[in-house]
Amino acid sequence: MSKALYANLDGVAYGRPQQHPNDLLTRVGPGTPCGEYMRRFWQPVLASRNVTTRPREIRILGEDLLVFRDGSGRPGLLYPRCMHRGTTLLYGHVEPDGIRCCYHGWKFAVDGTCIDQPCEPDGGVNKAGARQPWYPVEERYGLVWAYMGPPDRRPVLPRWDVLENLTDEEYYQVFDNSWGAHRDPDGPEVVPYSWLHMNDNIMDPFHVQVLHSTFSVTQFVREFEVMPTCAFEYIANGVIYKAYRKLDDGREVDRISTWLAPNIMSVPSTMLAAGPSTGMGFVVPVDDTHSRIVGVARMPKGQSRQPYRVNGKTWSQMSLEERQDVPNDYEAQSGQGPISLHSEEHLATSDRGIAMQRRALEQNIRRVMEGGDPDGVVLDRSRQLVHVPSGNFFRQKERTPEPA
Amino acid sequence: MSKALYANLDGVAYGRPQQHPNDLLTRVGPGTPCGEYMRRFWQPVLASRNVTTRPREIRILGEDLLVFRDGSGRPGLLYPRCMHRGTTLLYGHVEPDGIRCCYHGWKFAVDGTCIDQPCEPDGGVNKAGARQPWYPVEERYGLVWAYMGPPDRRPVLPRWDVLENLTDEEYYQVFDNSWGAHRDPDGPEVVPYSWLHMNDNIMDPFHVQVLHSTFSVTQFVREFEVMPTCAFEYIANGVIYKAYRKLDDGREVDRISTWLAPNIMSVPSTMLAAGPSTGMGFVVPVDDTHSRIVGVARMPKGQSRQPYRVNGKTWSQMSLEERQDVPNDYEAQSGQGPISLHSEEHLATSDRGIAMQRRALEQNIRRVMEGGDPDGVVLDRSRQLVHVPSGNFFRQKERTPEPA
Amino acid sequence: MSKALYANLDGVAYGRPQQHPNDLLTRVGPGTPCGEYMRRFWQPVLASRNVTTRPREIRILGEDLLVFRDGSGRPGLLYPRCMHRGTTLLYGHVEPDGIRCCYHGWKFAVDGTCIDQPCEPDGGVNKAGARQPWYPVEERYGLVWAYMGPPDRRPVLPRWDVLENLTDEEYYQVFDNSWGAHRDPDGPEVVPYSWLHMNDNIMDPFHVQVLHSTFSVTQFVREFEVMPTCAFEYIANGVIYKAYRKLDDGREVDRISTWLAPNIMSVPSTMLAAGPSTGMGFVVPVDDTHSRIVGVARMPKGQSRQPYRVNGKTWSQMSLEERQDVPNDYEAQSGQGPISLHSEEHLATSDRGIAMQRRALEQNIRRVMEGGDPDGVVLDRSRQLVHVPSGNFFRQKERTPEPA
Repeated sequence: MSKALYANLDGVAYGRPQQHPNDLLTRVGPGTPCGEYMRRFWQPVLASRNVTTRPREIRILGEDLLVFRDGSGRPGLLYPRCMHRGTTLLYGHVEPDGIRCCYHGWKFAVDGTCIDQPCEPDGGVNKAGARQPWYPVEERYGLVWAYMGPPDRRPVLPRWDVLENLTDEEYYQVFDNSWGAHRDPDGPEVVPYSWLHMNDNIMDPFHVQVLHSTFSVTQFVREFEVMPTCAFEYIANGVIYKAYRKLDDGREVDRISTWLAPNIMSVPSTMLAAGPSTGMGFVVPVDDTHSRIVGVARMPKGQSRQPYRVNGKTWSQMSLEERQDVPNDYEAQSGQGPISLHSEEHLATSDRGIAMQRRALEQNIRRVMEGGDPDGVVLDRSRQLVHVPSGNFFRQKERTPEPA
Repeated sequence: MSKALYANLDGVAYGRPQQHPNDLLTRVGPGTPCGEYMRRFWQPVLASRNVTTRPREIRILGEDLLVFRDGSGRPGLLYPRCMHRGTTLLYGHVEPDGIRCCYHGWKFAVDGTCIDQPCEPDGGVNKAGARQPWYPVEERYGLVWAYMGPPDRRPVLPRWDVLENLTDEEYYQVFDNSWGAHRDPDGPEVVPYSWLHMNDNIMDPFHVQVLHSTFSVTQFVREFEVMPTCAFEYIANGVIYKAYRKLDDGREVDRISTWLAPNIMSVPSTMLAAGPSTGMGFVVPVDDTHSRIVGVARMPKGQSRQPYRVNGKTWSQMSLEERQDVPNDYEAQSGQGPISLHSEEHLATSDRGIAMQRRALEQNIRRVMEGGDPDGVVLDRSRQLVHVPSGNFFRQKERTPEPA
Repeated sequence: MSKALYANLDGVAYGRPQQHPNDLLTRVGPGTPCGEYMRRFWQPVLASRNVTTRPREIRILGEDLLVFRDGSGRPGLLYPRCMHRGTTLLYGHVEPDGIRCCYHGWKFAVDGTCIDQPCEPDGGVNKAGARQPWYPVEERYGLVWAYMGPPDRRPVLPRWDVLENLTDEEYYQVFDNSWGAHRDPDGPEVVPYSWLHMNDNIMDPFHVQVLHSTFSVTQFVREFEVMPTCAFEYIANGVIYKAYRKLDDGREVDRISTWLAPNIMSVPSTMLAAGPSTGMGFVVPVDDTHSRIVGVARMPKGQSRQPYRVNGKTWSQMSLEERQDVPNDYEAQSGQGPISLHSEEHLATSDRGIAMQRRALEQNIRRVMEGGDPDGVVLDRSRQLVHVPSGNFFRQKERTPEPA
């Protein structure tokens, strides 16, 4: 036997059992426990500016859908295949009151009502009984939102306090192209991994110190090189962390980040700007192995978030080797695979926030399976406004009184 | 609850059962009911001009095959993997009497007979017992045809009257590249959807008025903007429709189109040229989710069908957005998906021809399952000639007698 | 019935049963009979020169692995996903004593030991219990080798006599890019077919006369146009053939080629250089349908094997039609499909060597299934040196005594 190189062969991979994901948290199609849970919440579809009279295919929670705006400005979300003979409405044309299929001209309103069947006698005497499958949508904060759950459990679309009361000097900057993963306008609109990877990332203050700060280049600010002292807390419908840092210049800062069930986040300024968070993010499951990261932030007019560059290159301009040199959220999360193999994870004390999130998710998924309503759905309009505690809060120094 | 936008949530897609195709009509592999039915008919393989001494891979009815022409001009259709050690004959070389495998030199005639085994003693003393799996072929109308069914049920290859008695001033223009779907020499040779989509299209006179005439641009002639009055009839082995139109200029025309089981069509001139049809078409299943549309038409020498263009662009030159603007048969049929989800269809009165076709197909498929012969196979050479009633027939106006 | 073209329809492909591979010999994943057998032998991973501080993904025997060299020069082969939260170590950075994950900074030595957990209190007080799954490796002959089998059965890495005692004028030329299939530096590093295709090729002296010599162009030397007389023999752990040729110029040569279980070959000079073989080759299964051909040969310094060209073009520069004209090993072997359909093979007398190889493989696979050790694993270091009989051996002519 050749024994020179290794003290022993403990822990070799031979005979290792097959690893697997946590299906309860990662399967999102119709009828799955997590899919049914997710469907109890309004989900962002696309930025309002991208919902136009040009129909677009979109997949959400494993369902293929068609999104468009009718000629009167109403957004619509329909099943893509025409109920008549199954041709996609992607080739349909929008009219003031709906969308017309290219093949035989059936026309549908944004609520699926069939309003014309031109090849049938008298335009279709039975068309009142025909309905293209559809989902209700709303618009707010520059986004189109959909409710894909059981109709009798439809909640109100929440308002988050950090986005309310926009001033005349502000606007909503909206990203529907997974900007949060790559910060690149030419990056992939949909990222090729489970929604849970980005969701895990939210309550993980420690990767900020490693991945974003000390591993390669400074991806946010130098201040994050200080390893934080972190506390995690449940709030009414989520988890927050408070990451305390004493900076080299003596300043002390509490950075509070928020996760709201099921897939909502509010990360405070990554430039460490002082004050409450100004934005919200959403990790929308496209299907089990893809997700779309949507974000909205209030911005001073005339300003906008700029692409992230290393050596002048955006994410999509980098080679694999360059991304190996300076990996970022996209690499860390896609590197977990299409769905992470949770059976091989070893969560440690620094993963406490993630463990708390997952516990909350599993409890709520089970509650929905048993017929209950999950935490965080707002059925009562008087409770529509949600408080988001996120922000970078610098502690006041005790000042020595100046000499008189 | 947010109720402003919709009167109610009737018909939302939530909870919709999983949709599915009609497997009986769309599965075409060996041993499937429709596959066995289809195998009872001669199927076109390729244009004769494309069957050469350069071997070519081709898939028909879910079977991977190799087509070539030996050095003496005989077309051959063999299993592609050499019976000896399984290497594809795609890398074989054609000789006057067969094709020789590149690996160990076994040579096969067009009927699969093994005629050389050069690495075996005396060229293979047992080679008479070896036979490469093969199918019989014939050539007619500028096409190579194959019979892939049970040998004891082999029918004669039909003759269709509209293609017979070619004059010295005519030739057969043959398309084996799904021209019927995109009318583009650079379009895909095989279209990525079930044969049933194009087959459904044949007995559908109404889409001519919508898709091809009033939806975007005039894809054939303006006369088709008139909604026709249609009658459908069973004929001996198929279905025909008679679409009557009274044109704006007072002319009246009966347009008769023919579908013959299982996948044969004769569409009259789409330029509304008067008189009987001059061509036949065939929707050959490549596999469950792909098909090849083959056509042959008698043409005056010196003339040929020209590519279809919109704004100067052929199908393959258009962007998705341009094809959304002016969808055509390819978009309508590919838009039904790889296989349409028949459980979500809602056939209406205008779909009567399709319902009749499908009923005939289902009856004949069941008959073959039970051991019978399907309608339309011609076992008796005296009945080889098939009458095809298709054409554009203008009605004679009653003329006022001219004054004497 | 149309009977003109064929005497009868014997042997048509209709009704042919579904063909299938020999799973016992071709499934190589963890837990499969052949996979477990293969794991009992050291397998080459990559050329040493390609194992660097830039981590690389590699798949062997159906397992996804990460290969790298730490900053102290030690090669490592680890499971790619970090045991902490599952991110691939492809984005890890190499340090003198290991590789550090990009996400939270866990660091692992080449034997999987966890040596840092920077986000945990005191760098991870429990890290001694953490171990990234790993495999032992060794370096020899310019290659990195891995042992992926049960730790208690680890054999010594053999030495092959034809590679030993390198002189000062020689070096090891190493190919880890499937050169043996395409002889092209730009050819595919991994070939898209089962390891058994190339393995079958080794004990097949007859394809040299057809494929490489008389089918199209001379791919090695003209002397191989002579059909050899072949004898096959079992040796202690493999099979050899002796191919005897009497050449046109009167010379007589015995060409001996060697296959050693499970996937090891020594092909003598294909330029028919006289004397023992100077190299060894290995067909490493990547997964069931892909393999990597690795080779090492002793070469005089200043010399190296040159790419093979036809009409000035290397393999990757040829079109399909050009490769049809002059097929070579890549075409013959890829032409057997991802895995050959062994149920449709017809082995003949010229395939005797292949039959002997497969018999030996099946016997040894079954022995491993029953708990035994396969032939050819060297557990005793005193038996580490393996004799390889390959070579081109020209017979001495009886010389007429010269006149005095």
